[in-house]
Amino acid sequence: MVDIKVGIVGLGRLGKTHANNVASNIPGMTLTAACSVVESELDYAREQLGVTETYISYEEMVNSPNLDAVVIVSPSGFHTEQINLAMEKGLHVFCEKPIGLEIKEIKKTVEIIESRPELVFQLGFMRRYDESYQYAKEMVERGDLGELTVIRCYGIDPCSGLESFVKFAGASNSGGLFADMSIHDIDIVRWFSGKEVNRVWALGKNAAYPELDEVGELETGAAMMQLEDKTMALLVAGRNAIHGYHVETELIGTKGMLRIGAQPDKNLVTVFNENGVVRPTSQHFPERFRDAFLNEMKEFASCIREKRQPGVSARDGLEGTRVAYALQQSIDTKELIDVTRD
Amino acid sequence: MVDIKVGIVGLGRLGKTHANNVASNIPGMTLTAACSVVESELDYAREQLGVTETYISYEEMVNSPNLDAVVIVSPSGFHTEQINLAMEKGLHVFCEKPIGLEIKEIKKTVEIIESRPELVFQLGFMRRYDESYQYAKEMVERGDLGELTVIRCYGIDPCSGLESFVKFAGASNSGGLFADMSIHDIDIVRWFSGKEVNRVWALGKNAAYPELDEVGELETGAAMMQLEDKTMALLVAGRNAIHGYHVETELIGTKGMLRIGAQPDKNLVTVFNENGVVRPTSQHFPERFRDAFLNEMKEFASCIREKRQPGVSARDGLEGTRVAYALQQSIDTKELIDVTRD
Amino acid sequence: MVDIKVGIVGLGRLGKTHANNVASNIPGMTLTAACSVVESELDYAREQLGVTETYISYEEMVNSPNLDAVVIVSPSGFHTEQINLAMEKGLHVFCEKPIGLEIKEIKKTVEIIESRPELVFQLGFMRRYDESYQYAKEMVERGDLGELTVIRCYGIDPCSGLESFVKFAGASNSGGLFADMSIHDIDIVRWFSGKEVNRVWALGKNAAYPELDEVGELETGAAMMQLEDKTMALLVAGRNAIHGYHVETELIGTKGMLRIGAQPDKNLVTVFNENGVVRPTSQHFPERFRDAFLNEMKEFASCIREKRQPGVSARDGLEGTRVAYALQQSIDTKELIDVTRD
Amino acid sequence: MVDIKVGIVGLGRLGKTHANNVASNIPGMTLTAACSVVESELDYAREQLGVTETYISYEEMVNSPNLDAVVIVSPSGFHTEQINLAMEKGLHVFCEKPIGLEIKEIKKTVEIIESRPELVFQLGFMRRYDESYQYAKEMVERGDLGELTVIRCYGIDPCSGLESFVKFAGASNSGGLFADMSIHDIDIVRWFSGKEVNRVWALGKNAAYPELDEVGELETGAAMMQLEDKTMALLVAGRNAIHGYHVETELIGTKGMLRIGAQPDKNLVTVFNENGVVRPTSQHFPERFRDAFLNEMKEFASCIREKRQPGVSARDGLEGTRVAYALQQSIDTKELIDVTRD
Repeated sequence: MVDIKVGIVGLGRLGKTHANNVASNIPGMTLTAACSVVESELDYAREQLGVTETYISYEEMVNSPNLDAVVIVSPSGFHTEQINLAMEKGLHVFCEKPIGLEIKEIKKTVEIIESRPELVFQLGFMRRYDESYQYAKEMVERGDLGELTVIRCYGIDPCSGLESFVKFAGASNSGGLFADMSIHDIDIVRWFSGKEVNRVWALGKNAAYPELDEVGELETGAAMMQLEDKTMALLVAGRNAIHGYHVETELIGTKGMLRIGAQPDKNLVTVFNENGVVRPTSQHFPERFRDAFLNEMKEFASCIREKRQPGVSARDGLEGTRVAYALQQSIDTKELIDVTRD
Repeated sequence: MVDIKVGIVGLGRLGKTHANNVASNIPGMTLTAACSVVESELDYAREQLGVTETYISYEEMVNSPNLDAVVIVSPSGFHTEQINLAMEKGLHVFCEKPIGLEIKEIKKTVEIIESRPELVFQLGFMRRYDESYQYAKEMVERGDLGELTVIRCYGIDPCSGLESFVKFAGASNSGGLFADMSIHDIDIVRWFSGKEVNRVWALGKNAAYPELDEVGELETGAAMMQLEDKTMALLVAGRNAIHGYHVETELIGTKGMLRIGAQPDKNLVTVFNENGVVRPTSQHFPERFRDAFLNEMKEFASCIREKRQPGVSARDGLEGTRVAYALQQSIDTKELIDVTRD
Repeated sequence: MVDIKVGIVGLGRLGKTHANNVASNIPGMTLTAACSVVESELDYAREQLGVTETYISYEEMVNSPNLDAVVIVSPSGFHTEQINLAMEKGLHVFCEKPIGLEIKEIKKTVEIIESRPELVFQLGFMRRYDESYQYAKEMVERGDLGELTVIRCYGIDPCSGLESFVKFAGASNSGGLFADMSIHDIDIVRWFSGKEVNRVWALGKNAAYPELDEVGELETGAAMMQLEDKTMALLVAGRNAIHGYHVETELIGTKGMLRIGAQPDKNLVTVFNENGVVRPTSQHFPERFRDAFLNEMKEFASCIREKRQPGVSARDGLEGTRVAYALQQSIDTKELIDVTRD
Repeated sequence: MVDIKVGIVGLGRLGKTHANNVASNIPGMTLTAACSVVESELDYAREQLGVTETYISYEEMVNSPNLDAVVIVSPSGFHTEQINLAMEKGLHVFCEKPIGLEIKEIKKTVEIIESRPELVFQLGFMRRYDESYQYAKEMVERGDLGELTVIRCYGIDPCSGLESFVKFAGASNSGGLFADMSIHDIDIVRWFSGKEVNRVWALGKNAAYPELDEVGELETGAAMMQLEDKTMALLVAGRNAIHGYHVETELIGTKGMLRIGAQPDKNLVTVFNENGVVRPTSQHFPERFRDAFLNEMKEFASCIREKRQPGVSARDGLEGTRVAYALQQSIDTKELIDVTRD
């Protein structure tokens, strides 16, 4: 079994996670090439990960004759173009979410992807590969919960990053709280329900940093969404969880309900001290979803070997972004928004 | 210290709870009179509770020279009239929620109540007297959570009552899911935030009993509300909790969050068996709020003795109903509703 | 229904709890008399509880023609004599644990009690009247756990009292850690298993206050006991729980296991803050067992009315003390001790 | 970096776990050789794991010029001899617990191991490499719990294996419940406390399968141990957990306490259904300690590369077995046993 040779573009925090996984933890994959405009990141790839080819230009990397696949972890604005180019070169593509920033461009890229069914395309919705989410999904499929009526998703980042977010909030645009934070939650709603979102209302409040009002950013938001079969979805997105990284999903059905991550337990330790009975908490996504990042990349490798497509498609990326933008539109207009599909 | 002599009207499930408390568990109160159109309920009052005066007519009861106060647990449609009459007779009034069914009538009653400040009036928002809710309220007052940004309230009845609800759904009107089930949650949102609700959107879905669509009733609903200071409130109301009586409140603030009743633990027992690790659950409101019902009645007695008004006022009842009706209007019109106050 | 007229002896912390319950919270009981050598305690009884007869001499109190029953909450050394005297006077007796300090005297008192079956005698093993313990007992009786194999009991007092315990440790004798702290746990082991303890080994360690070694007292101890049917019991007793009042009981059976108070939750609030996910804790026995104290006194009243004996007998007190002393003997001799019954 | 070439002996359930890890999941290790007397196991190694050398004779395997290290997962009776032989051949050794069955032989093997400090020797006490145990260990080292006074360890296998255990209980000897089940717990007690065990008492009870009495085996046992600094340790060992695989460790110290695995949560899902609030549970050790098995093997590889010894030494194996045998001796003699070291 010859190893799948992978080139990666982008070596920030999440990029390094993927790079390390491909280089060391995914049997049957080799990290052959890395591309970044940051010299120190290329040094890291060479020295720590044993990468033999490094590039400043993505175009040059995909022209390398030594690659089977690319992993795209660059800034979101580059995604569609980099996907298109890789597809053109006949490379399998694993791309971090979102698939792109403009609906029109995303659609074009989805068409390109769908025109090359022999190439594997996978979007980085890693939660679908988390064992707790998979356990819940199996319960839903088996009918243990009956028919779903309400889905509640919380995605709240730890407050440790908020101060620096506030500092740079004016300079760079996050895409808005919901596009930035809820994209995974929207995907999870669609995944569990198998339904599309029809109508949304979104609200926000800046209380710790009221100055965010001035730059059109939000610290905390909430949204309610109606799905095509009347299932109700509630979202809370935030950047200010004092206790850690709070990702929680609840499914309410006619025969039972369940919660994934009702509290973000870090491990199996319970501490009894002057504060009461305390469970330590996960502090960030690389910790919470460490195994999910591994599992999704193993699935990418398996899909390539077994010549099949993964469960999460390019179209999932398109629909997720569509809903995120509707939520932002609701924030902007203060109105109910019908999600339009054409 | 002479006992406060109480007459009660209505001896259904909740009425019996109050009647028993007044008769046996509230030091300094005596249950003197009972009024009901159901003969067996009057027998019960005489034989089990030692009540000496029983009435079929409420008007007759309040004319008894032996009463200091009335406890109103009759059907909601009678509340305003019975309050008005008791006030006229100079009796202190404890009234179950809601204060009435018509905003206009409620307002008139609120005026009557406010014109008699020497008479104690208390509305049966017992959650405010639950020790967990009080513990949370103290945390909020102390600033432990910082400024509130999101409040989430679940009020889901056990499924055991759903079948009979469905059977009678056409015949009698429940007032709608939100007026019926969320009135306590709306009060809790107002209590914790100290703010009024400005704008709401409500949704519903009938999945276990789709026939409820035909009679305009809901099995499960969700709502999002914007408060005057932009605080966001999320509600889930339902009649179909498989696991028991699920009343849960969450407060998210800039300095921390908390949940009351994150799971409806029945007691301190944890069972380890073939189902996994299991916590038994509360099965209905008399079980979950047993002490709260006691506490609110003790507070009513204290207010009478100490010649002061309780924390929960007639106006709280008016505002709660106003919001519940806005939620129902949103269900009916499928639109965002601005809550109007005139 | 005429009220049962009660005299109480001893008005310390626990005495006040019982006095308040009898005076205000137990329907059908009146607190008529109080006895104490502390003048301020008698003032309290008169002024706060409306007691009409106060005594410095217990003998005088039991000679009052106005009493039906006594509640004994005096220092343990007086218990047997006070029980004997009350029985002689034809009074029903509720006595706090232990029944006495000397096995020989206890036996004599048990004989006296058993010679007066028309008088109700109840020992203050309030845990048997806690709703979680009762829920567990019902599970055991129903066979939900199969046959019991291991029982584990923790009784650890909050550290808040340790410093003052250390200060007075030389002056007054606590009876030893196990007699002082584990007497309830021993009773619980006997209650759940229905078996007697045959053989014990006990250990102790002073780590926070090594000076306790010098006065023969223990800060923390552990014991293992073999019951007559080979069921194993593990005890931990302590005076140094940082997190609060930790009373926990575990039952392991052939068909399942359960824990009562696996963590000493104070209420239904969960806090998410910089410490992690935190459950506040019970801080002392009046808080944890508030309802159990009420329930046991209600049972005492019911037994008097219904002319029957309660589930917890004088003999339970004798056996509990016997085992506690065997544990202390094991600490003293460092050997396995066979519990002897003659 | 050249891969470490590994030969494995024993390919049962645990052997397969290690073999798969070495073959696929440990960067820098290759599974070169496998030894078994079961032909199908060698087929598995060749076909599923790509092993190039297979052996029926362990002696032949360690004579292969292609190996750097061996992983010993054979029946316990072979361990000492196989360790000795590998050491003689200059191979690094990873050996599953226990190090051997006879104290005398173990001592000889420990001497051999200690005479070859340039060869890495690691014993399979994988719990030390579990992230929750490591988190707890760090808390202890930092002094968060103060001085330890009580350590409680439960190791209870799921009941799913009990029936077949009973069937074969007469034919093959398990070494006794404590040697079989508590060896990890004993190691954990020594690891957290840094102290040796001085004195023990052990008890057992067969309730589900009383016929085990006849073959001298135990279904459930409990033990109390005194450590050299008076720290107390409580053990429960069993083969009959209805709810899954219950491995739990508790540390009580003068400044706080903690529990690892207070309940054996399978994942982060909480289910609310007709049984109550349910957490699914781990079902066996490969599931619970999956990552710990990986981590210990990574540590073995790192030690080889970095020319150092791991935290868990041959002597830890000797001491663990010594205590396990003292527990069994206590069962046999029904007496307190002093652990002797010569």
